[in-house]
Amino acid sequence: MLKEYDIMQVPNLKIHGRIEKPSSPLPLFGTHSGIEVNCTGSELWVDVECEYDFHDVWVAGEVNRALMFRQMLMPGKNSICLFRSMIPGQVKNVRFYRELQAMSDNPEIFLKVTGLRTDGEFLPVSEKKYKFEFIGDSITSGEGSYGAREDTEWLAMYMSSSRTYVNMIERMMDADCRSISQGGWGVYTGWDNNRSHNIPRVYDRVCGLAPGPENEAMGSFKPYDFSSWVPDAIIVNLGTNDASAFNLPALEVPGHGLCKMRKDETTGIRNPEDEKKIFDAEIAFLKLLRQKNPTSHILWVYGMLGNDLEGVITGALSEYSKQTGDGNVAYLALPDTTEETVGSHSHPGYKSHLVAARVLGKYLSEKFNVPYREKQGNL
Amino acid sequence: MLKEYDIMQVPNLKIHGRIEKPSSPLPLFGTHSGIEVNCTGSELWVDVECEYDFHDVWVAGEVNRALMFRQMLMPGKNSICLFRSMIPGQVKNVRFYRELQAMSDNPEIFLKVTGLRTDGEFLPVSEKKYKFEFIGDSITSGEGSYGAREDTEWLAMYMSSSRTYVNMIERMMDADCRSISQGGWGVYTGWDNNRSHNIPRVYDRVCGLAPGPENEAMGSFKPYDFSSWVPDAIIVNLGTNDASAFNLPALEVPGHGLCKMRKDETTGIRNPEDEKKIFDAEIAFLKLLRQKNPTSHILWVYGMLGNDLEGVITGALSEYSKQTGDGNVAYLALPDTTEETVGSHSHPGYKSHLVAARVLGKYLSEKFNVPYREKQGNL
Amino acid sequence: MLKEYDIMQVPNLKIHGRIEKPSSPLPLFGTHSGIEVNCTGSELWVDVECEYDFHDVWVAGEVNRALMFRQMLMPGKNSICLFRSMIPGQVKNVRFYRELQAMSDNPEIFLKVTGLRTDGEFLPVSEKKYKFEFIGDSITSGEGSYGAREDTEWLAMYMSSSRTYVNMIERMMDADCRSISQGGWGVYTGWDNNRSHNIPRVYDRVCGLAPGPENEAMGSFKPYDFSSWVPDAIIVNLGTNDASAFNLPALEVPGHGLCKMRKDETTGIRNPEDEKKIFDAEIAFLKLLRQKNPTSHILWVYGMLGNDLEGVITGALSEYSKQTGDGNVAYLALPDTTEETVGSHSHPGYKSHLVAARVLGKYLSEKFNVPYREKQGNL
Amino acid sequence: MLKEYDIMQVPNLKIHGRIEKPSSPLPLFGTHSGIEVNCTGSELWVDVECEYDFHDVWVAGEVNRALMFRQMLMPGKNSICLFRSMIPGQVKNVRFYRELQAMSDNPEIFLKVTGLRTDGEFLPVSEKKYKFEFIGDSITSGEGSYGAREDTEWLAMYMSSSRTYVNMIERMMDADCRSISQGGWGVYTGWDNNRSHNIPRVYDRVCGLAPGPENEAMGSFKPYDFSSWVPDAIIVNLGTNDASAFNLPALEVPGHGLCKMRKDETTGIRNPEDEKKIFDAEIAFLKLLRQKNPTSHILWVYGMLGNDLEGVITGALSEYSKQTGDGNVAYLALPDTTEETVGSHSHPGYKSHLVAARVLGKYLSEKFNVPYREKQGNL
Repeated sequence: MLKEYDIMQVPNLKIHGRIEKPSSPLPLFGTHSGIEVNCTGSELWVDVECEYDFHDVWVAGEVNRALMFRQMLMPGKNSICLFRSMIPGQVKNVRFYRELQAMSDNPEIFLKVTGLRTDGEFLPVSEKKYKFEFIGDSITSGEGSYGAREDTEWLAMYMSSSRTYVNMIERMMDADCRSISQGGWGVYTGWDNNRSHNIPRVYDRVCGLAPGPENEAMGSFKPYDFSSWVPDAIIVNLGTNDASAFNLPALEVPGHGLCKMRKDETTGIRNPEDEKKIFDAEIAFLKLLRQKNPTSHILWVYGMLGNDLEGVITGALSEYSKQTGDGNVAYLALPDTTEETVGSHSHPGYKSHLVAARVLGKYLSEKFNVPYREKQGNL
Repeated sequence: MLKEYDIMQVPNLKIHGRIEKPSSPLPLFGTHSGIEVNCTGSELWVDVECEYDFHDVWVAGEVNRALMFRQMLMPGKNSICLFRSMIPGQVKNVRFYRELQAMSDNPEIFLKVTGLRTDGEFLPVSEKKYKFEFIGDSITSGEGSYGAREDTEWLAMYMSSSRTYVNMIERMMDADCRSISQGGWGVYTGWDNNRSHNIPRVYDRVCGLAPGPENEAMGSFKPYDFSSWVPDAIIVNLGTNDASAFNLPALEVPGHGLCKMRKDETTGIRNPEDEKKIFDAEIAFLKLLRQKNPTSHILWVYGMLGNDLEGVITGALSEYSKQTGDGNVAYLALPDTTEETVGSHSHPGYKSHLVAARVLGKYLSEKFNVPYREKQGNL
Repeated sequence: MLKEYDIMQVPNLKIHGRIEKPSSPLPLFGTHSGIEVNCTGSELWVDVECEYDFHDVWVAGEVNRALMFRQMLMPGKNSICLFRSMIPGQVKNVRFYRELQAMSDNPEIFLKVTGLRTDGEFLPVSEKKYKFEFIGDSITSGEGSYGAREDTEWLAMYMSSSRTYVNMIERMMDADCRSISQGGWGVYTGWDNNRSHNIPRVYDRVCGLAPGPENEAMGSFKPYDFSSWVPDAIIVNLGTNDASAFNLPALEVPGHGLCKMRKDETTGIRNPEDEKKIFDAEIAFLKLLRQKNPTSHILWVYGMLGNDLEGVITGALSEYSKQTGDGNVAYLALPDTTEETVGSHSHPGYKSHLVAARVLGKYLSEKFNVPYREKQGNL
Repeated sequence: MLKEYDIMQVPNLKIHGRIEKPSSPLPLFGTHSGIEVNCTGSELWVDVECEYDFHDVWVAGEVNRALMFRQMLMPGKNSICLFRSMIPGQVKNVRFYRELQAMSDNPEIFLKVTGLRTDGEFLPVSEKKYKFEFIGDSITSGEGSYGAREDTEWLAMYMSSSRTYVNMIERMMDADCRSISQGGWGVYTGWDNNRSHNIPRVYDRVCGLAPGPENEAMGSFKPYDFSSWVPDAIIVNLGTNDASAFNLPALEVPGHGLCKMRKDETTGIRNPEDEKKIFDAEIAFLKLLRQKNPTSHILWVYGMLGNDLEGVITGALSEYSKQTGDGNVAYLALPDTTEETVGSHSHPGYKSHLVAARVLGKYLSEKFNVPYREKQGNL
């Protein structure tokens, strides 16, 4: 017989991802947000509710940190089996998480967990020694991590959390990781010269990327309590869309007028004044990050889809340190996506995320003295 | 508006896996059996029906040969979205297949496809230039290809077709592949000295591994028409369980008495008379394969979980050629599973299957002059 | 009994590297210049003469395209065994080549081959289907391809031709390759702002990088006859030192005054006027290359030690094509050297050259339809 | 001005490889034997003397553990520059070692070091934390680690110490390693059924593989003092030639009569009595190793050229432990050489040695808690 638990009544429930405060139902606002339990049952089910229209909501489940399922939800209520027919009394570590990023243009989309059902007990879940916060764009939202190379539509099914470098770092370093990411957004401007598509603008909200009445009612736009989860490191993977903006046409943006990052159309040399705007935005974002996270190591990573702005990023990091005396920031180049590692929609594939995770894992291993170990044969 | 098609009314439907004859509903008897369509719709759904008790039935779906979903079915009827929100008019190649092997000890288990629903059309699906038939045991049934290394239960969720070397060869070489495989079975004896657990005994049936009234009613135990699908190569991956039997205690097997493959318990040297039984069974199986498949190249592969019997296998291949004058047989050693590549339940993990697929792919490439190409970043 | 041949009397001698005309002794002016024979003897020796002072001259030998020896020469005459105790009558393909680049600041250095000694015959050496010319800096001169990571002196022993991507391409694609390269030099300026250290200035000489009375007497400064060896592709790997110049102090250069590539010292953003000078120099060099090599494919490769100037290079290639209508030029990004692949003196190590060769090999394979195949276990 | 030192007068000289006692000249009897110094000079030379006839003597040199040269010696006296033009006062770690194995059939061959010349001082060389002794055959003698895949002669130039897994382990684990190895020999019989070609017979001599008046005068056949260098682990890589003997014709061996390891010529199944001889020889060798090395971990590794006898080896290890109660022995499978990793003469190439070193390094890392780290880009 399975016993039914309201999600807020589940003993020892571990919540992944930013929320305003624990509540029932529990919102999963963005990519990689989810729940984790240690369950002794022979069987475990999760009950969720979601809505969507064009872009469907996908979820994934892991048992003992190995991926078991990945599937699309149906609109409305869904019951999903997390495991069954297992030996009762033994502890199974189970995660259930959102694959789809927060969708800033789709107020109709939401996903919430209502309860769990099992024939066993919920034992305490270990506190991880390290916490890492990831801030990024479509790369961090796993766009392209599923799908064939020739697939070029912009679809939810090509995005994931399960196959991102964030999840790999989390698994391989036995850490807790959160992601704040949005495809197309930058540190100063979106890829299409949309000036309002910059992550710093929403960083201090619970999830400023999840609009709509359902999400807002669950607290997505509320100020975020930075003391509730103090990251040991913040990994910023922004700049790719800022660089794209130099190559795209001007865009009329409400409140910002006609926006365009300029370059010399003959030589391709970028306009130094516009580069300077990114430089300044980076320094301002570093100051904001430090204000909200006084003790965290801040690491800017870059390069998985070209590195045109590497000089601007490293320059801004130096200048920020000079201005503030803050030495707890660093830069790490990530390997570029190649013909071998590209996924769908010209984005990093699974292999590219794996290559990036190894480089980043090595850095974090040395910084925090915790090993990065790949799970054997089933990545 | 979606139009509903009975599965036998779907134009240009391609069926994967052995069946007695096309019928509605369409049975998916064993691992990797499934359907394939080229669909122009913006949306496509599959309707299936299954039953199970202890061991659950899992399925997977691919779009343009990239894995999109993998999930457990619910007992009874299920409707699964294969894709949606895609550009209508463009062709999407879609596959839906069974992850779980035929379950020879579970007569209650079955899976059948009843229909498809779409707003588009079904265009012809390409005939592949090459057809490969795989014959094997738990390795070929993908046991261990999902799940963490420390997972040691015997569960359906750890088995797959999606992450096997069979599926990799099929994708990378643009071929059609079928599997006839059963965990624990051998060419002469099962891993536990069960003499009746040998694949040759069931090879000439449609699917002699799928018992039960539902499966039998759909033709599983009928003689198989070998002319319906002529493989260019037959890849036999057997011997691993025959070798295990030397290390396991004697077993009373109905119709066979007390069965035991003997070895010198001090030196570990195997009894030559018992080795000879395997040798003879291999030659007999080679003769059966050739009788049923006069034109196919027969390739015995071995080594993914040790290769204790390599000498016996290569010896049998030589002796078979000498006796029959048949030169169209060969042996290929596959790399052993290592601590790096092992999956769950001490079986080959995803990485081990990938390593094996590369070696086998290279062999088949040279044999048939067709390239083995890994899909870029999303394996 | 060995028979002694003056180098100009060796039947079927193949000469690698630019020379004014075949002569005895035969000068080996720059990196990878050498000789090749197909010899049927049981034994073969080469006699050479060299001089040097601070920087020693190194050579290497290959048998059937596998590296056998690499050693420092003694000043004066040296006799070196290329092979012995081999089966007479069988053909051995043997190469002997210079490891050390031409040394533009060391007029005392020279190396020349005087003769060969063998008990066999010299059979014809195959003409290769493709010829590739490489133009580069310290990367192409193999600096760092020998030596430990912590070695930071500037020494001849850390430079090679044997472990460069040039040699790898030559071997793996069965082509003939030549190198014109000089550490520290650029397309517009040297790494230290020395404006005269640009390869275009010396490109039309036999070897404008090899000064001194011995080299000049052997024709190093003579105009080069471009019709004598028509490359199918010219691979230009320049730009790395031009980028460095932005980070180094101003330099007084005779004939050029005080030279300095400027950047904003706060933001690190490069001065667009100075970037334009490199842009113009690239276009001018492309025009010179095309004038001298009307039929060659011109490929600019870049990125093994950072790619700050990638935009300038791709911009110049576009503008060149626009101005001239010449579409037979292309750009290829090479992977950056990483902590894993770096060699001595902060330069690309053997592994970095191998990674680059695979990327470049793939490009050339597709361009010229000739496979890139690594020699099995002994690279 | 260089100062000349007799080899026994060199302060802080470290000697690699077995010798009877330090003496001048210093013999280098077998593969990987050599000298190591930490020298502060700007320049260092080594003086050696050797003789040979058909098989030439090769040596190699490393600076700071990176290979710099590899070359054939001339018969008689040779002076070889180990480095020059380096910054005086800084310490350079330099090794000079023999590439060629001891040659048991060539009494005319010897190699000895007579002295060093430098303008600097010799500082102490670090004691390594761990010492490993390797016992093997042609694999451990590096046969095939140089040379092209198509090269099939049996020549000194294809053998090395520089590219073996022994040298890799030594470098990557910062250990001291010694090799006792001979191509074609086994633990019970040589590859051609020569019963006297077994390593156990010579194990307790200084170098029972180096005959001839010169070697004997320098103590090669003297009893070896096992207390002079106590290995932390003994790695035995034998069995490959014992397995070959089953496939080769009978051989008349003086003192042993007609020798032949038998197998069933039809089935290929090996004769259990002959397998038992190997089994017994292994147990006897383990007992001898333990008697001479009471504290060493004994590790039998196997598999780089097939693993037909794996069961016999693991059986013998079990039986030895049962008989003696000695639990300080273990077995480790090494990866088989593949088409990708094979070198010349059908032997493991450089890549195969690298693959083996990684597996063995991982084992030793865990056993002794010392990291295995590959030197960056220059292996």
